[in-house]
Amino acid sequence: MRYAGRNDLMLVEMCAGTSIAGVFTRSATRAAPVLDCQEKLGRPHSGPAAILVNSGNANAFTGAAGQNSVNSVVDALARETGISSQRIFTASTGVIGEPLPHAKIVEKLSELNAGLKNDRAEHAARAIMTTDTFAKGAGKTVDINGSPVKISGFAKGSGMIAPDMATMLVYIFTDALIGQDDLQTILSDLNKTSFNCITVDSDTSTSDTLMVAATGKSGVDVAGNAEFRAALNGVMLDLAHQVVRDGEGATKFVEIRITGATSDADAHRVGMSIANSPLVKTAIAGEDPNWGRIVMAVGKSGAVADRDLLAISFGDILVAEKGWVAESYNEAAGAAYMKQQNLVVHVDLGVGSASATVWTCDLTHGYITINADYRS
Amino acid sequence: MRYAGRNDLMLVEMCAGTSIAGVFTRSATRAAPVLDCQEKLGRPHSGPAAILVNSGNANAFTGAAGQNSVNSVVDALARETGISSQRIFTASTGVIGEPLPHAKIVEKLSELNAGLKNDRAEHAARAIMTTDTFAKGAGKTVDINGSPVKISGFAKGSGMIAPDMATMLVYIFTDALIGQDDLQTILSDLNKTSFNCITVDSDTSTSDTLMVAATGKSGVDVAGNAEFRAALNGVMLDLAHQVVRDGEGATKFVEIRITGATSDADAHRVGMSIANSPLVKTAIAGEDPNWGRIVMAVGKSGAVADRDLLAISFGDILVAEKGWVAESYNEAAGAAYMKQQNLVVHVDLGVGSASATVWTCDLTHGYITINADYRS
Repeated sequence: MRYAGRNDLMLVEMCAGTSIAGVFTRSATRAAPVLDCQEKLGRPHSGPAAILVNSGNANAFTGAAGQNSVNSVVDALARETGISSQRIFTASTGVIGEPLPHAKIVEKLSELNAGLKNDRAEHAARAIMTTDTFAKGAGKTVDINGSPVKISGFAKGSGMIAPDMATMLVYIFTDALIGQDDLQTILSDLNKTSFNCITVDSDTSTSDTLMVAATGKSGVDVAGNAEFRAALNGVMLDLAHQVVRDGEGATKFVEIRITGATSDADAHRVGMSIANSPLVKTAIAGEDPNWGRIVMAVGKSGAVADRDLLAISFGDILVAEKGWVAESYNEAAGAAYMKQQNLVVHVDLGVGSASATVWTCDLTHGYITINADYRS
Repeated sequence: MRYAGRNDLMLVEMCAGTSIAGVFTRSATRAAPVLDCQEKLGRPHSGPAAILVNSGNANAFTGAAGQNSVNSVVDALARETGISSQRIFTASTGVIGEPLPHAKIVEKLSELNAGLKNDRAEHAARAIMTTDTFAKGAGKTVDINGSPVKISGFAKGSGMIAPDMATMLVYIFTDALIGQDDLQTILSDLNKTSFNCITVDSDTSTSDTLMVAATGKSGVDVAGNAEFRAALNGVMLDLAHQVVRDGEGATKFVEIRITGATSDADAHRVGMSIANSPLVKTAIAGEDPNWGRIVMAVGKSGAVADRDLLAISFGDILVAEKGWVAESYNEAAGAAYMKQQNLVVHVDLGVGSASATVWTCDLTHGYITINADYRS
């Protein structure tokens, strides 16, 4: 599609009976493949299923031609594989506003289908990359009543990362046995504290897609099972964190913990206000323990906060409390802490008991270089 | 206070009977001088008044000591000048979280007061600068029923610019005759479409202050006068635009016009979503006519929008309409347009008749350099 010397088309096929759940961007200008997936997900299902993804072109803001392109590749894959077009889900990621050259995809489907293997997850992860600098995968095997259930997934994402309802492209697979409605409920719930809690640059993609497919092959029924839920949550968090670590131009991975808020929504709002602040993110890039900018970001968030009840820590170092710098705070210790690659910023609002944790990266010259040149 | 080789303390004195109105940041962590000004503004007034501003230290997040510092300088200036402490308004701009060395200010007040002159507006504008690269001033004389009424003001601001209720430090003076309540009403109203419609980096200051003082010296009553309102609006817009032009690292000044929205609030929301998007701003820095990122920013804004009704123009060049690139669009013409320093991006949402205009700048390596090093 666009990138020389690397694969940019990815196909996954799943057995009959696979339950599939998904969450997607809430953007008002979402891409044709997203609209197509959303329409299909709610329908009754049976038979095998497939996911087909291209990178290099987002097929977003491409008018009626966008849906025609989706139909062309889906119908061609249905003919090639015998899978119902209603069970074929697509995604496209890359440049917005250029027509998808779907004929180039259609002509590769036969070769792609013939080459399917069980051990190509890393190849799949590589084929959906855009500005990503590494392939992102995660997996876990959880023991449920003596039987192993496997979960594995991969993701792409580096810029235009501020998930609203979902984010980026993420595909997770499990051999657990679970109905589609139950799977959707778990996915939507876990999404709130994983992908919806990361940001690279506050911009929200038109293509964000997160799907989980459960084949049932293990025969282990996981509906309502806490271990399965915890394992799936672990895989989702792992992938979400990898996206932040690979944020465009990022040199630091920052966890922002908010406690003492009057509501979970307020805690999230404060966390995202800090995580999206260009001044906080440039200070982190400069390894400057600039807690004044944290105070600024708390103040602008719109959440309930009281200057004199705020406490701010960098890692284990208490920096500010009671409306001012902490008596015990030592600037040299703060500066030394900021030189680490993995940082924890903890803000206790002191006005309630709700909390949230979000993840972000720093804002560097690398981000400017990538985005003043690369056309996404 | 902080800057070698330049003045950083500014004093204005105004005659008895001057009406003073102001709007301020809504930050939950606003600075001590802001809280002090807000408390004083509502009080009955008479007698002369003064404004005292220092740069280099924001006296923000400085706990109870912050208010003590305000009281110290206000009381000293009241003793020095005979002006009531209730009519002395202060502001501080610079580093957040460090104690204000108010004794250094107090010891300069006598010299400052003795040196007051009518023709020092530019000196005043220079004394309140922080990362600003030029002093910002604007003025207008308007003829009202045959009598001239003068308006002039100055401002500082370059980074941490995303006004909420007000912004930065802005002081405007006029010899018009107008009551304090009427002046406040006009100010709050005009503020909505001037300072509240600019952004440099989406971050909101803890010190934002905009005050207008009307001495009444012209004897011309301007209550309800449309020409005065238009002239004041012109001065406010002029200063607001200068702040954007001097945005940290900025190389482009961008006007974003939104039309066809279902409400003014939605139009503003879309405008600010575009104006704050790091991906839109880096594309502008790279002189890339990347309208796909404009589509993205419309989509994430949360405003009512329909992909197939959107129209996007750069200057007079229609780029996209009906959900896709315009037939008449020529990429070379778009690229040539983006090389200009002053850009207009027009988005017609096509779903209503409300509109808004906002102003922003590009996001460059300069912003990263300034903010990864300078401690604000």
